[in-house]
Amino acid sequence: VSGPKVWLNGAIIDADQAHIAITDRGFTLGDGLFETMLWTGAKVRFLPDHLARLQASAAALGLTMPFPADQIEAALLALAGDFAGQTAALRLTLTRGSGQRGLGLPEHQVPQMLATIAAYSPTVAPVTLASVSIARNVTAPSARHKTLSYIDNILALDAARDLGADDAIMPGTTGNIACASSANIVIRYHGQTLTPRIEDGALPGIVRGRLIVAGLAHEVCITCDMLAGCDDAALTNALIGVRAIATVDGRLLGADDNWVNGLRAALLR
Amino acid sequence: VSGPKVWLNGAIIDADQAHIAITDRGFTLGDGLFETMLWTGAKVRFLPDHLARLQASAAALGLTMPFPADQIEAALLALAGDFAGQTAALRLTLTRGSGQRGLGLPEHQVPQMLATIAAYSPTVAPVTLASVSIARNVTAPSARHKTLSYIDNILALDAARDLGADDAIMPGTTGNIACASSANIVIRYHGQTLTPRIEDGALPGIVRGRLIVAGLAHEVCITCDMLAGCDDAALTNALIGVRAIATVDGRLLGADDNWVNGLRAALLR
Repeated sequence: VSGPKVWLNGAIIDADQAHIAITDRGFTLGDGLFETMLWTGAKVRFLPDHLARLQASAAALGLTMPFPADQIEAALLALAGDFAGQTAALRLTLTRGSGQRGLGLPEHQVPQMLATIAAYSPTVAPVTLASVSIARNVTAPSARHKTLSYIDNILALDAARDLGADDAIMPGTTGNIACASSANIVIRYHGQTLTPRIEDGALPGIVRGRLIVAGLAHEVCITCDMLAGCDDAALTNALIGVRAIATVDGRLLGADDNWVNGLRAALLR
Repeated sequence: VSGPKVWLNGAIIDADQAHIAITDRGFTLGDGLFETMLWTGAKVRFLPDHLARLQASAAALGLTMPFPADQIEAALLALAGDFAGQTAALRLTLTRGSGQRGLGLPEHQVPQMLATIAAYSPTVAPVTLASVSIARNVTAPSARHKTLSYIDNILALDAARDLGADDAIMPGTTGNIACASSANIVIRYHGQTLTPRIEDGALPGIVRGRLIVAGLAHEVCITCDMLAGCDDAALTNALIGVRAIATVDGRLLGADDNWVNGLRAALLR
């Protein structure tokens, strides 16, 4: 029986044969980036957006992409072959590779790239959110890029779950609303659909970007008071698409199916 | 010829045989902790302090230590055997181990622990520092614990080097001074030795803690103006001990050898 496969540095191999070097800076220092993508059963949704973001973030971090986009795409499609007709979550990880001791960038970088796939079925039930005190650092690259340094978001989610919620609302260090632990947020407020600014710590999410470009969401400063006074809200990310938020800090939202369905439909256009 | 060794989950093995699972959350999400320790040639300096910090941080992050302190100590001493009479850098890494997709903590955690050693000779030449805009997030666990999520410090160091300096001065998101990219800072100011507060984003460093407990450094809020007006300054961490700072943003400091040597001597008592 053939087990699960991964794509590691250009080759499809058995997942249980794939390992990371103990000197890889992705492991020792969270020095890398990743993308999480939805396999719809027939295609990788928003693939060009994901690859463009990864490429731009790699450039910002002084990382080079070890493979061209078409080769990465071919790898993802090959991995997804076992999931024809089923949805799945694809993850593409790029690290700076091995280096000498310390934080200094290696003179000669050999970036490592890994793609994995896992069964995934979008959950559609509305989520509950709780505000946490762990803030997104608006001065930091880790807030603007999807890096491997995720500990603060992990602990933000854990804090929200301790409060009985499904996910966290993280403020930015500006004090305004930023995003959830692994999703952006949109709110319906005075008839408009609004989403937090990058300057307030929001990750430049793929679905978020699509909604903004389509004119369906407006990027503005969202204060805590605005969130507390909104009519509706939803989470967005590449896997869930758009998912309604049932409650924020215990306050029941409008649950306007038309609004969420409208956003969702816009993504499929 | 026998090559370098590492200690991985209880066994000393060849370094080139040691690998990390691609599902390890230390690799996928920076979900773990580490300690960097000085092997003096005869002992691991401040070992009880390092193990106590790791234990406390692990508890704060909901991680369990997979080995008792005495077993970890024996492992470090075994690794250091090849470095009798020479200084070396020991690194102990603890990760949350493998988990399912997503940020949620695995129900059943199998933490992974790795110890490595590398040749290291303390450099004593005074360093130059440059202020950078990447700030330490005072709301975040990543600022208070030595986690694997290090990307912001990596890029702070890189930004400082782009400015021609050896290391970065990072502010806290409070706007006050926090620390360097992988060292704490002490300043001589109006005849007193001062060090930034944890509340301003300083990592609770081992040498820093020793100096405070010995009454040789006082933890206070250090503003940018205080740094700009200090008579002298030094970096501290477990590997360098105390290292003089030659310049901050181009301003030449006092280079008072007595002050730096006094701090250094106090550590050896």
